[in-house]
Amino acid sequence: MTETMLAARMHDVSAPMLLERIPTPEPGPSDVRVRVKACNIVPNLANVLQNWTTWFPQNPLPSLPAIFGLDPAGVVDAVGTDVKGFKPGDRVYVNPGRYCDSCRECRSNNRMHCQNFAFSGYFGLTPSSGIMLDRYPYGGLAEYTIAPQYSLVRLPESISFETGARLGYLGTGFAALRKAGVGPTTTVLINGISGTLGLGVALFALALGAPMVLGTGRNRELLDEVKALDPQRIHTHSLADGPVDGWVKELIAEGVDVHIDALGPGADHSVFNEGLKSLRRGGVAVNIGATAGPVPIDVHHMMDQQQKLIGSCWFSAGEGQAMVDMAASGAVDLSVFEHIVYPLEQVNDAISGISVRNGGFSNFIISPS
Amino acid sequence: MTETMLAARMHDVSAPMLLERIPTPEPGPSDVRVRVKACNIVPNLANVLQNWTTWFPQNPLPSLPAIFGLDPAGVVDAVGTDVKGFKPGDRVYVNPGRYCDSCRECRSNNRMHCQNFAFSGYFGLTPSSGIMLDRYPYGGLAEYTIAPQYSLVRLPESISFETGARLGYLGTGFAALRKAGVGPTTTVLINGISGTLGLGVALFALALGAPMVLGTGRNRELLDEVKALDPQRIHTHSLADGPVDGWVKELIAEGVDVHIDALGPGADHSVFNEGLKSLRRGGVAVNIGATAGPVPIDVHHMMDQQQKLIGSCWFSAGEGQAMVDMAASGAVDLSVFEHIVYPLEQVNDAISGISVRNGGFSNFIISPS
Amino acid sequence: MTETMLAARMHDVSAPMLLERIPTPEPGPSDVRVRVKACNIVPNLANVLQNWTTWFPQNPLPSLPAIFGLDPAGVVDAVGTDVKGFKPGDRVYVNPGRYCDSCRECRSNNRMHCQNFAFSGYFGLTPSSGIMLDRYPYGGLAEYTIAPQYSLVRLPESISFETGARLGYLGTGFAALRKAGVGPTTTVLINGISGTLGLGVALFALALGAPMVLGTGRNRELLDEVKALDPQRIHTHSLADGPVDGWVKELIAEGVDVHIDALGPGADHSVFNEGLKSLRRGGVAVNIGATAGPVPIDVHHMMDQQQKLIGSCWFSAGEGQAMVDMAASGAVDLSVFEHIVYPLEQVNDAISGISVRNGGFSNFIISPS
Amino acid sequence: MTETMLAARMHDVSAPMLLERIPTPEPGPSDVRVRVKACNIVPNLANVLQNWTTWFPQNPLPSLPAIFGLDPAGVVDAVGTDVKGFKPGDRVYVNPGRYCDSCRECRSNNRMHCQNFAFSGYFGLTPSSGIMLDRYPYGGLAEYTIAPQYSLVRLPESISFETGARLGYLGTGFAALRKAGVGPTTTVLINGISGTLGLGVALFALALGAPMVLGTGRNRELLDEVKALDPQRIHTHSLADGPVDGWVKELIAEGVDVHIDALGPGADHSVFNEGLKSLRRGGVAVNIGATAGPVPIDVHHMMDQQQKLIGSCWFSAGEGQAMVDMAASGAVDLSVFEHIVYPLEQVNDAISGISVRNGGFSNFIISPS
Repeated sequence: MTETMLAARMHDVSAPMLLERIPTPEPGPSDVRVRVKACNIVPNLANVLQNWTTWFPQNPLPSLPAIFGLDPAGVVDAVGTDVKGFKPGDRVYVNPGRYCDSCRECRSNNRMHCQNFAFSGYFGLTPSSGIMLDRYPYGGLAEYTIAPQYSLVRLPESISFETGARLGYLGTGFAALRKAGVGPTTTVLINGISGTLGLGVALFALALGAPMVLGTGRNRELLDEVKALDPQRIHTHSLADGPVDGWVKELIAEGVDVHIDALGPGADHSVFNEGLKSLRRGGVAVNIGATAGPVPIDVHHMMDQQQKLIGSCWFSAGEGQAMVDMAASGAVDLSVFEHIVYPLEQVNDAISGISVRNGGFSNFIISPS
Repeated sequence: MTETMLAARMHDVSAPMLLERIPTPEPGPSDVRVRVKACNIVPNLANVLQNWTTWFPQNPLPSLPAIFGLDPAGVVDAVGTDVKGFKPGDRVYVNPGRYCDSCRECRSNNRMHCQNFAFSGYFGLTPSSGIMLDRYPYGGLAEYTIAPQYSLVRLPESISFETGARLGYLGTGFAALRKAGVGPTTTVLINGISGTLGLGVALFALALGAPMVLGTGRNRELLDEVKALDPQRIHTHSLADGPVDGWVKELIAEGVDVHIDALGPGADHSVFNEGLKSLRRGGVAVNIGATAGPVPIDVHHMMDQQQKLIGSCWFSAGEGQAMVDMAASGAVDLSVFEHIVYPLEQVNDAISGISVRNGGFSNFIISPS
Repeated sequence: MTETMLAARMHDVSAPMLLERIPTPEPGPSDVRVRVKACNIVPNLANVLQNWTTWFPQNPLPSLPAIFGLDPAGVVDAVGTDVKGFKPGDRVYVNPGRYCDSCRECRSNNRMHCQNFAFSGYFGLTPSSGIMLDRYPYGGLAEYTIAPQYSLVRLPESISFETGARLGYLGTGFAALRKAGVGPTTTVLINGISGTLGLGVALFALALGAPMVLGTGRNRELLDEVKALDPQRIHTHSLADGPVDGWVKELIAEGVDVHIDALGPGADHSVFNEGLKSLRRGGVAVNIGATAGPVPIDVHHMMDQQQKLIGSCWFSAGEGQAMVDMAASGAVDLSVFEHIVYPLEQVNDAISGISVRNGGFSNFIISPS
Repeated sequence: MTETMLAARMHDVSAPMLLERIPTPEPGPSDVRVRVKACNIVPNLANVLQNWTTWFPQNPLPSLPAIFGLDPAGVVDAVGTDVKGFKPGDRVYVNPGRYCDSCRECRSNNRMHCQNFAFSGYFGLTPSSGIMLDRYPYGGLAEYTIAPQYSLVRLPESISFETGARLGYLGTGFAALRKAGVGPTTTVLINGISGTLGLGVALFALALGAPMVLGTGRNRELLDEVKALDPQRIHTHSLADGPVDGWVKELIAEGVDVHIDALGPGADHSVFNEGLKSLRRGGVAVNIGATAGPVPIDVHHMMDQQQKLIGSCWFSAGEGQAMVDMAASGAVDLSVFEHIVYPLEQVNDAISGISVRNGGFSNFIISPS
């Protein structure tokens, strides 16, 4: 550790990030400092940087100049006086979700429902969540970051920092599968299976034992690549080949048990709806995708058929720990990703370059140290 | 019991019912025969009789000529050889939900998710549900009906047949409150609080201890009548006075814990959406209303805020038993209804006359015997 | 089908069964008749036949002369008029659990809690359960049996009748694992892992993805045979080598997430308690074994450590269906059993012969037809 | 605030506390300082002070000299830099449960299962929990205490500090009722209903709507006083008048839905067992009492009857908030307590004097400021 560190900072909304030396931060009593070895450039980052203040003016960005960077992984470098479970040298992923610990939901230990929930290095989820961004202003696009002990996932030796930095989107999928109760007797449909989000859902649906994993997407080559992960259990369908629900009902006449929607922000609303229509009576849909705008949903049908639509946002560090433990034991295979690694100096190139990628298989990483 | 009984039968879709004498049916081994003392004329019956085959051509009506009648209450008159828990003379409500007991969900004891679920005396909920309508072809608009023992709710002496016949719409509300986990620390919003469905939700939300019950509707006089049930806990809002969510946030800044939508079939979609927007982060919406057509829902907001939309259809006989036990112990007050009773001979008048009513307070009943 | 069938009947408690010709029974409207191809001789049968009336005088045996036989598998031969989901020729396992459908729990669709729950062909679980034994008096030790449609598990072609007849003990273990929420992140301890019950728990714990399965038993050779099923995930310990909890804490310092107790009736109470002491704070124990008599439990420790002890009895047909579907898809391996098949004529030999067996790997079967 | 404060400290195990002036502590970034207006002297405190190191040598007491005091209530006096939800002047109860935020359970937001869970001002629950006692060494028997923001319950104006200081034992009962799912259709048996713990269970069972609350105890006068709280719903039974289960089955033939055991440390084991035997098939028992030593439990019966025994320890601050909100809205009546208030100087008298009390109605309070 030195007295200053290199950080990429955004001084104006949508302006390119500048590389600057700033004082290396000190951890508070319940925090750790992490030397960042890898930080994910998530597909949606460019959108957030450019459009957040227009699209979601009610919710805050980090105060400017801001260090972004959603999913850091690295090595614990210093620990606060009240940190007992982690020590310098520990390899960790930092879950960016931040809890206020004083709202009613936090005090009830429902911290994922925190009324001030924010993503450190990204944005806040509620109008009042700026207090959490101010409390944790160091995102992952810097040599060091500061993280509360509750946010840490211990990385087994067999998990690289690049894979660790992928946990955010993977965890979003894992939490959705858990909310839907997916296991060895549950069939699952995934809209957007070949994307960064959907591919993670598929990997963990397989790991949880789902006997049939149905996935839709646009790019047939990518769909084939996904199917190759488990040709017996995975079935894919190109959106160019007709409505999703028609295809699903051919494979499972009564419909699927669970639908996870992982579509990107530009997706056609009809695809979301076809996912809902693919459910069996009593089925459960979970939305983790970025489908935006008002989706015309047949709530009467959902009622008649006793169906649920669950909105699921992110995951706990404990769920992250479960995921890497599964990877370490061989229960899930996280070796399928192709890591594209940039130094911190090329952060702006990385953010704009991510538009050309091999679906969810590509993993864009900044390695600041 | 005599060899024949009087029954109202519909010979053609949307034709008036004819009063006819037909053979009195015998109960099967696990069924009982009930002498019907009261059968509800639910608000939606006229719609079903006239428009079902157009609106929901995929789902069956009872075979013609058909005996309709959704919610019968009466006296057990004969029992099958395998019926041990009920005996002639028992006062009962008959839950019209019918389970096939052979689909995967039934064999898993999730019978509310039965793939052949049907409402005896009303319609089937799935394309294959005609088998259940054929198995139980006797609705409540006749002197006798046949009901499986699993459908029976034992009526305490203090519950009249007229009140018992109201259990269907009440139970729909009760089951919704249970799915949402409503209790003494849960705030509840009810869209359509003064209607037949919404009023029942309000009564049981109070009984379950909800500290604040917020309700919306159109008719200010009816809303005042609802508020008078518990002026301290109930708050009402006329849709003419502005959007629902704005009003809710004035009363509870962070939003309500639970929203139950009990709107009628003609409701404006914006009201449904304002209900969703009234939820706090982590809140739960349950739809039991008849809102029809595609409702434009902001699924992205639901995801960000970890919110659920649950479709809930009907309730079990056990839930019905819980409700009448609560009424008997004084936990819920079911004395608020005004019963309008017709003989079976005036069934057609009753069906058309229900359009003029005092909101959910009116209870239209046919008394066939 | 012929007018009479061969059946093994017990005329006096603990007397040998007699082979007799009796009228072939007809199925009721919601029942099927099954031609029995295989019926399990469960390890505890001899005990039940000889000691039930002494040990559990409050709960009934089937009326004498009685046809016992807990777990039949065979071919549907005739169906009642109300059976729509099964037809003659279907290969099925018959779950012997019988529900009354009229008690409060049944009417709430909690049929596993039926107050008249009985095992057809075995015994009743409550003082009033004789009504269910009388309703279904035909156990599996006969050429034909009668079963309600809700009790049927459709056997995939790849599952033999001998394996199907093993579903009872397997399902008891599967249901316990489900109640404890076992999955890819849950460590599991099984007391009695090499027995008929415990081996099934182990097979399904592996199938559900448990990363560590710890098992105890007496016979070291059998324990080695169990460990060979998955040498990496399964760890075994002989009770001769010291207390269970000491061994467990060496492997998992904080204790196991879940303990399933599957000990036989003669087990030492200390082993049950060592299982409880092996739990981590917040851990869950499920008892499915036959440990009898008062077990001295430290309820204060369970309270301090937020632990649960769940009593779990049997499983639904839906859970049975899930299990065979998992076997058909390869998720669980049921090929490990050694079937010892007797004709119906040797039923008494089979019952007494089962005391000599290769632990849970042996599967004693009567093949009546 | 002044630079020093008065505190009662124990310098040796079982020695009387000494009144001393020590430096007034400063809150950490996520903590608040509370000026203590009332601190409960819980019935078990004398036992803990004298016998803990003998009875539970594996679990730590606070480091000596130690400030004890389990349940403080008072006024926030200073807040750390990261505390946003509370401010000086707020009236609060301090939940003494402390979480480490770094073990797997904490990082999964199951903080009640924290592997380092400790009661500040009382003792630790696990061998490693000393780290939490060292982190929060200030119990309530002093002019000021330090508390993390997650531990705070905001007291409505209508709740006095004396009542607030009672929340610990009340919350233990409330959490047990929630784990058992008690509501308007659940019958409840409470062993030890007239004690400090049991009386709280009774008050909240009534508030949650339980239709029948059955309670046992020794002192008939106290039982009568409890019954007078709601003569219609509460039924009491003196242990001198025969076994608990016999009495229960007379009132409810099939048994109670839920049993909460709140017996004191000296209770006869047979009473605990009679509580278990009072459960219906499928019933749930929760132990929150101090019954010590091995209780001989019939686990075979629990298995046959699908019953659970849940150990429940304490409650979250969110549950505490729910309780006082219920009191403020009138849903629960907490006005039944008789407060016996001592100044801090008489702390040793109070601790020894508590043995003479009017059952759970007496509330022994130290008022340090």
